[in-house]
Amino acid sequence: MTRRPGIEALTFDVFGTVVDWRGSLIREGRALGAAKALDLDWAAFADAWRAGYRPAMDRVRVGELPWMSIDALHRLILDDLLKQFRIRGLRESDKDHLNRAWHRLKPWPDAVRGLKALKRDFVIATLSNGNVSLLANMAKHGGLPWDVILSAELFHHYKPDPEAYLGAARLLGLKPAQVMMVAAHKDDLFAARKAGLRTAFIRRPKEYGPDVARDLSDERKFDFNADSFLDLAAWFGQRNGR
Amino acid sequence: MTRRPGIEALTFDVFGTVVDWRGSLIREGRALGAAKALDLDWAAFADAWRAGYRPAMDRVRVGELPWMSIDALHRLILDDLLKQFRIRGLRESDKDHLNRAWHRLKPWPDAVRGLKALKRDFVIATLSNGNVSLLANMAKHGGLPWDVILSAELFHHYKPDPEAYLGAARLLGLKPAQVMMVAAHKDDLFAARKAGLRTAFIRRPKEYGPDVARDLSDERKFDFNADSFLDLAAWFGQRNGR
Repeated sequence: MTRRPGIEALTFDVFGTVVDWRGSLIREGRALGAAKALDLDWAAFADAWRAGYRPAMDRVRVGELPWMSIDALHRLILDDLLKQFRIRGLRESDKDHLNRAWHRLKPWPDAVRGLKALKRDFVIATLSNGNVSLLANMAKHGGLPWDVILSAELFHHYKPDPEAYLGAARLLGLKPAQVMMVAAHKDDLFAARKAGLRTAFIRRPKEYGPDVARDLSDERKFDFNADSFLDLAAWFGQRNGR
Repeated sequence: MTRRPGIEALTFDVFGTVVDWRGSLIREGRALGAAKALDLDWAAFADAWRAGYRPAMDRVRVGELPWMSIDALHRLILDDLLKQFRIRGLRESDKDHLNRAWHRLKPWPDAVRGLKALKRDFVIATLSNGNVSLLANMAKHGGLPWDVILSAELFHHYKPDPEAYLGAARLLGLKPAQVMMVAAHKDDLFAARKAGLRTAFIRRPKEYGPDVARDLSDERKFDFNADSFLDLAAWFGQRNGR
């Protein structure tokens, strides 16, 4: 049996894995609603915005749309939602500010502490479909201590295309097996695994709100299943006999 | 007169501007020499290694060589130098370790403190011809607190090609005039300026050693001329009335 190479870097999915997009969008929506006297179900609005993301991205993935950043895709969906939810009277600057709510998403409670712990032993990088500037602004806003910001934007391939995972390993100067993908979404991890990366599943039971049941069961095919980044750091600590 | 947009991000040249490549390579060479009983003028070796860099890169820029990372170019030059300096008896792992001395270059004394000060008000990013993994390893090694690692590698265009400067602004989600290039080399800054970026010249009189005189005069075409990153941070502080 050949020994597998050691893990040198961790790449993180961001929306849902590192930050709570739903809670953050609801808060931003309510603040806007209070300022502009808009009466709206902001949870439904947040869910609809997120629901539009995968289909829009898939149109880029199959070549039906040219390459567009997530900022641009979010804005496409937002313009539809403003009609659908009959939101009127927003200026262009208001719409742009709302679209950039995705730059201000709040980290889950364990995220910053967990990343700091993991950063001691590994290169920690984003590997998100979010564009570079979105991820950089979010990191500054939320205090996320990334070593490297990697994004589908750099490869013009959205996850789960293999080019995104393989491109990340290449830019990090590592073999795929030296990189562990960390995500709250099993499809992301199965695609990473197929590309040769290691995998850690982080359960985020509240990502889609209290009413949406999700498959949070352990997967034996993943290298680790955990409840938080602190769990993951503790697991690595034990493996290294600390 | 139209008002120029505010500066949002600073992009930094790295070799010579942030880190002291010459002093670091000499130290690494002497350590290797002591371990392997090699008697050598390591300053001459460091200078020759750096002197090979621009011609090698230019061969990529004009299409004479396919795209190659700086790690690969450094190794090409190193293999020549090992013959030229009659260095024998190094194993492949020794050569690889020596080539990666560029991943372990030490920051100038003001660099980490200056970057931390500038990071409070700006997105701070590398914009180096060094590859992403080299810059990431160097940052971890030297405690450089980058928000974003940007590299010619992402654009497959080495500086001073305009694609590198314009690509950096685009990934940061900014107009070129919202980005300031910070460098110890005037040719880098003139190229950045031509692409529409702001410019700050940092004098690094010791970059090429004590015996090499360089043009360190102020350039009125640059937005600022300074002796250190701390100078630059102080200048921004004054401009903002702090």
